[in-house]
Amino acid sequence: MTASKILLLIIDGVGDRPCKILGNKTPLEAASLPNLDRLAAEGICGIMDPIAPGVRGGSDTSHLSLLGYDPHIYYTGRGPLEAAGCGIQMEPGMIGFRANYATVDDEGRVIDRRAGRIADTTEITAAVKNGVDLAKFGVVIEFAPGTGHRAALALKGKGLSAAVSSNDPKKTGVLPQTILPEDDSKEAAFTAEVCNEFSRQAAVILNNHPVNLERKARGEYPANVVLIRGAGEMGVYETFEEKHEISGSVVAAAALIAGIGSSVGLERIPVLPTTPLAEQVKLVCSELERKDFVLFNLKAADEYGHDGKAVEKMKCLEEVDAALLPFFEIPDLMIAVCGDHSTPCTIKDHSADPVPLILHGDGTRIDMVSKYDEISCAAGGLCRISGGSLMPILLDLIDKTHKYGA
Amino acid sequence: MTASKILLLIIDGVGDRPCKILGNKTPLEAASLPNLDRLAAEGICGIMDPIAPGVRGGSDTSHLSLLGYDPHIYYTGRGPLEAAGCGIQMEPGMIGFRANYATVDDEGRVIDRRAGRIADTTEITAAVKNGVDLAKFGVVIEFAPGTGHRAALALKGKGLSAAVSSNDPKKTGVLPQTILPEDDSKEAAFTAEVCNEFSRQAAVILNNHPVNLERKARGEYPANVVLIRGAGEMGVYETFEEKHEISGSVVAAAALIAGIGSSVGLERIPVLPTTPLAEQVKLVCSELERKDFVLFNLKAADEYGHDGKAVEKMKCLEEVDAALLPFFEIPDLMIAVCGDHSTPCTIKDHSADPVPLILHGDGTRIDMVSKYDEISCAAGGLCRISGGSLMPILLDLIDKTHKYGA
Repeated sequence: MTASKILLLIIDGVGDRPCKILGNKTPLEAASLPNLDRLAAEGICGIMDPIAPGVRGGSDTSHLSLLGYDPHIYYTGRGPLEAAGCGIQMEPGMIGFRANYATVDDEGRVIDRRAGRIADTTEITAAVKNGVDLAKFGVVIEFAPGTGHRAALALKGKGLSAAVSSNDPKKTGVLPQTILPEDDSKEAAFTAEVCNEFSRQAAVILNNHPVNLERKARGEYPANVVLIRGAGEMGVYETFEEKHEISGSVVAAAALIAGIGSSVGLERIPVLPTTPLAEQVKLVCSELERKDFVLFNLKAADEYGHDGKAVEKMKCLEEVDAALLPFFEIPDLMIAVCGDHSTPCTIKDHSADPVPLILHGDGTRIDMVSKYDEISCAAGGLCRISGGSLMPILLDLIDKTHKYGA
Repeated sequence: MTASKILLLIIDGVGDRPCKILGNKTPLEAASLPNLDRLAAEGICGIMDPIAPGVRGGSDTSHLSLLGYDPHIYYTGRGPLEAAGCGIQMEPGMIGFRANYATVDDEGRVIDRRAGRIADTTEITAAVKNGVDLAKFGVVIEFAPGTGHRAALALKGKGLSAAVSSNDPKKTGVLPQTILPEDDSKEAAFTAEVCNEFSRQAAVILNNHPVNLERKARGEYPANVVLIRGAGEMGVYETFEEKHEISGSVVAAAALIAGIGSSVGLERIPVLPTTPLAEQVKLVCSELERKDFVLFNLKAADEYGHDGKAVEKMKCLEEVDAALLPFFEIPDLMIAVCGDHSTPCTIKDHSADPVPLILHGDGTRIDMVSKYDEISCAAGGLCRISGGSLMPILLDLIDKTHKYGA
């Protein structure tokens, strides 16, 4: 029997380096992972460079690579993908930005870059979206809330460019920056003007909004300014179904990953960072009944890596492991387990270290590896592959590859 | 001491996936292979993607890749290579086709696509070749018998194109198809007309040929129609000797492989699928006295893979193994053992799974692998390489590589 469906489980930032607090083991090496070890024992393992050896990928470029979209061709910046992840219908040519609410004092100086960690910006975001008028520029805006203080902005119109700077001063005690063109084109100058006008109008709307007046009254920081960054022009993506000839969904609480999925045409199944793991797993299982492919991204381990918290990362991996049991019950399933990149606690950022990879399902060869970690998997039957090879290999394993030649 | 000659032994379709009937082992894992295991133990092993990871190669594209000819540059379809393999002198620009004799009834409907498995078509093929007259088109035909009901056709003339369809209906009970142009060019339209005229004239000659009259009299299916497919324009191949600066021969009973060999300028040593293995090995040994390089292809394992016969494939591999003993006697020999692709019994077709590789001879590093199979070799000192790297590595091992730089 040959598997016919693919689960691509990406444990974000899974790979690591030896951590002193774990006796010089990596979080994966130190953790107790009975389900992942079982997958390793029953399947075939290897290590994978998500983009290429020595290339320190972002979550965006790495996910594109793992989905079979060479980021050197497809990646046009994080903004448009984040915007897609916040539910904005991004069309090729639209300019997308990551956005976040911040607080400025009466003199306009930024005093909190997260607006007092405001939890829900649905109402104020709608007010900005509906209130900002850029008709005189011939530009329409889309503005959507993300999680917490985050949001995303997109501009649609003629003569726009992604070559504009950010208004985020990246520190407190100073004024937001004026957005500037980053090249000499008239499109960049025009777009910078549009962005500054958006910022100005948004600030007026926010300053007078009842939500912010109430926050002030409660002694909380108002969300009275929108900082935007990561401008990018939405690219043209061949759809996942056109490219790979299989249908697919994405289950990812992180807006960026959901946005990458929906940008390539995967159906986005809404989950939140607060959605319990077991519920997310259930959603994935039901998607696998309808679709050929599910991208399931779990973000938490990456965040512990960024925070340098090795023990917490280890425990987080154990929680992920415990949640995987239902996947063993699905017949005909090819499971790929990997990370999009390593996020070593020792450097608190992504690294280019390869990620450990398991392929598990009817049809894979079975090697001697029986443990899921960075070193054990390197001895596996897949040796070392590149992220761009993952989808071709998976499609071959479910017998959906076309022969090249005769 | 360093080896000075290369034997490239390609066990066609050698790689596999776990087979239930073999206790979830692959045929290689289940087989008893003392000679291959000795080669593995005394040499260095690895796994190899014949073309690239996840690419499911044909025998044609994979052999080109292993011989150092990037198929993306050189491959122009199976027809011209098959024609070369049937002994036709293919020149660049000629259009080659795979052909097979079939049987049509009195109303012209195909009733047997293999013409009653006719064994020898030498006589009727000569009659067609000499009888068909395409002079009014300015076209000369070459038509040569292959094994059994197979043959190959080639067209030589001006204004020809490979963009034409097949007349093979791929099923019985229907008329052969009219060959159609596959693009809007006048060359394609012209070539389709030439092909249909060839089919028409060939049918007249075959219907009245004594061989077929006798077959009918004996109650056998006559070979009274020629079905052609796989049109391709013969490409321009830098010769093996120009490219690699060594001389070489090909020993391959499969016409396609012999054709690939002769297309790149290897001397073709004629063998038949019925030539005993020991005799083929003897021919290879004597070629290695005259030449620097021999490509030796053994086809049978691939055919068992296509038929899904795991036990038979295992036994076939054991027969191959037993035949290899004479190669240990040749001094100065570098032996490369691999497959051109995997042909898992579970999917009855080629797959992209990498093939296990041994390099054995004076000069190779020696790793810990002592068994020739898909998983054992993955732990070898070569790790995972691409097929396009094989010839450069072999040439380096026999010290015939030029230094790049100083």
